[in-house]
Amino acid sequence: MKHILAATALTLALPAMAQEAEEPVTPSSVVAKASAEEWTTIAAEDLLVMELAPDARGNPRTVVIHLIPPPFSQPWVENIRVLASAHWWDGTSVYRVQDSYVVQWGDATEEKPLPEGVVSPISTFDIDPLGPLGALILALGDTTRELPELCLTEHPNSRTACRDFTSPTNYLVGSADYEDWSDGWPFASNLDQVWPIHCYGHIGVARDYAPDTGTGAELYTIIGQPQRHMDRNLAVVGRVIEGMEHLSSLPRGSGELGFYTDEEADLRTPIISVRLGSELPHPPTFEYLNTRSESFATYVQVRANRNDAFYTVPAGGVDVCSVQVPVRRVAE
Amino acid sequence: MKHILAATALTLALPAMAQEAEEPVTPSSVVAKASAEEWTTIAAEDLLVMELAPDARGNPRTVVIHLIPPPFSQPWVENIRVLASAHWWDGTSVYRVQDSYVVQWGDATEEKPLPEGVVSPISTFDIDPLGPLGALILALGDTTRELPELCLTEHPNSRTACRDFTSPTNYLVGSADYEDWSDGWPFASNLDQVWPIHCYGHIGVARDYAPDTGTGAELYTIIGQPQRHMDRNLAVVGRVIEGMEHLSSLPRGSGELGFYTDEEADLRTPIISVRLGSELPHPPTFEYLNTRSESFATYVQVRANRNDAFYTVPAGGVDVCSVQVPVRRVAE
Repeated sequence: MKHILAATALTLALPAMAQEAEEPVTPSSVVAKASAEEWTTIAAEDLLVMELAPDARGNPRTVVIHLIPPPFSQPWVENIRVLASAHWWDGTSVYRVQDSYVVQWGDATEEKPLPEGVVSPISTFDIDPLGPLGALILALGDTTRELPELCLTEHPNSRTACRDFTSPTNYLVGSADYEDWSDGWPFASNLDQVWPIHCYGHIGVARDYAPDTGTGAELYTIIGQPQRHMDRNLAVVGRVIEGMEHLSSLPRGSGELGFYTDEEADLRTPIISVRLGSELPHPPTFEYLNTRSESFATYVQVRANRNDAFYTVPAGGVDVCSVQVPVRRVAE
Repeated sequence: MKHILAATALTLALPAMAQEAEEPVTPSSVVAKASAEEWTTIAAEDLLVMELAPDARGNPRTVVIHLIPPPFSQPWVENIRVLASAHWWDGTSVYRVQDSYVVQWGDATEEKPLPEGVVSPISTFDIDPLGPLGALILALGDTTRELPELCLTEHPNSRTACRDFTSPTNYLVGSADYEDWSDGWPFASNLDQVWPIHCYGHIGVARDYAPDTGTGAELYTIIGQPQRHMDRNLAVVGRVIEGMEHLSSLPRGSGELGFYTDEEADLRTPIISVRLGSELPHPPTFEYLNTRSESFATYVQVRANRNDAFYTVPAGGVDVCSVQVPVRRVAE
């Protein structure tokens, strides 16, 4: 089975079963061997469960979202909790699908009143609610304290030294000095500022021109290569942890920027409901691999230097967004 | 129209109409103002036109591919010309769609005989057919000779100086010292080697374990963030220049690695035909923006530092794959 062999080595998927000891070390095998205490449970109040209308075959389409924790984007996340509690998204739709960019949803009519108290926060997107010292502590990130050999936070001037280890050239995004993870979430920093970044499946808040910052009622998720020019210009509020394929495979809109035109309004995907996990009688349980864990450190290293049977030349580096934090559903 | 406003500023699309002089400078406006002589026509023999079965609404689905020019991956490109001339792909299918990774097509049965002479080339993927001096010349790229202010090819050690201009931190991929474009195609180099890279919509050759290098009969295209670990391990042979949405929006396969399972074999998309442009009575005409042109240089700079009305904080850098080389269809 030529294709299967080739494809197996290409995988980004995380198999649920443990790898056998004889098999080569892959990102999947590292995750499979992580110990139970290296996984962190996502609180039900940090989950959003979005039920789309069933697909053409009648299959259900459920999208599960993990809301970003403090200190990032909290004013918008609070709005989202209010909107979800008010069942505001019920009956709205996915109304924009732009190839290699974003899928966007909310109220296509732009006339649905918002619940009381939901306004665009007066805030910037590079958030330092902890003060300069707090920002510095956050900026140290998770892996720097556990992974000196990766030297992710080396200043660019000393990057050549770092490259002797894992060549983290690609950890650098835009004008950031470095990136790292904090409590399961990737961020970038230039030591003055710290900000959450856009990766595939991450969710942000659509907005009008500044000073508008958006409310969180209209949301988008990234379905192509994440664009660094979005960082610090739009609020990152969460990420899709299950069901991403229900959004990324939707037909592209033929209108400007991927909006469905009036003639193709039937392509809009109805949103049946959006609920906070804490509102559900039986919320699903998800865990993410602690980004301070030893297994996560190994996972990053293996991702940056794939050398199992399929690979001849290790990349020697990996984009921070290519290191998707492993998430798994826990059986009920 | 709040959403439209927000979306307009988010655009990656290239409008066909020229921008008015009063409008802010955007990547689109730069491309719209490029002069006629800055565009290069793609030869008909470098085009592949793939006709998929019509969609559920009966709309045609045509995918146009630009084959990569010398010196990159030429043994595979020659195989592809032979396969297309033999009409080998007619009646095959798109049989694998893995979310955020690849769409793959060819012969799902793995039993279709290949035309005579089509074998896996004995080659590496970091190609230097010109010898060390030629590699160095190629490695200098297009923009370095035209864009000293971008200092794309500065050695990493002097990167801080570069950052005074456009902070090209994100031009660095994996263990490459730098990236640039050569005759319209992005590549990476470490001065010893030069290699083409995987970007969104780029097409590569599926293969078995080394020393197999694939023939070009089974092809994939990138539908998510491009992964640097694919570079130098798989042959890059072209890119989709029109109709990418017909591949990226296909339903994801539920089998391992996105292969359609036997139960969902009907989800495979039939390939009606694949033809070289030179075999068509009326081939379409496409042009790309010359990567040595002044407009391309400006385009890169604006991409790296979006500062039109929507953006408050310029990124100060851009991933080489986020600088998609502009391509346009010429009216017949």
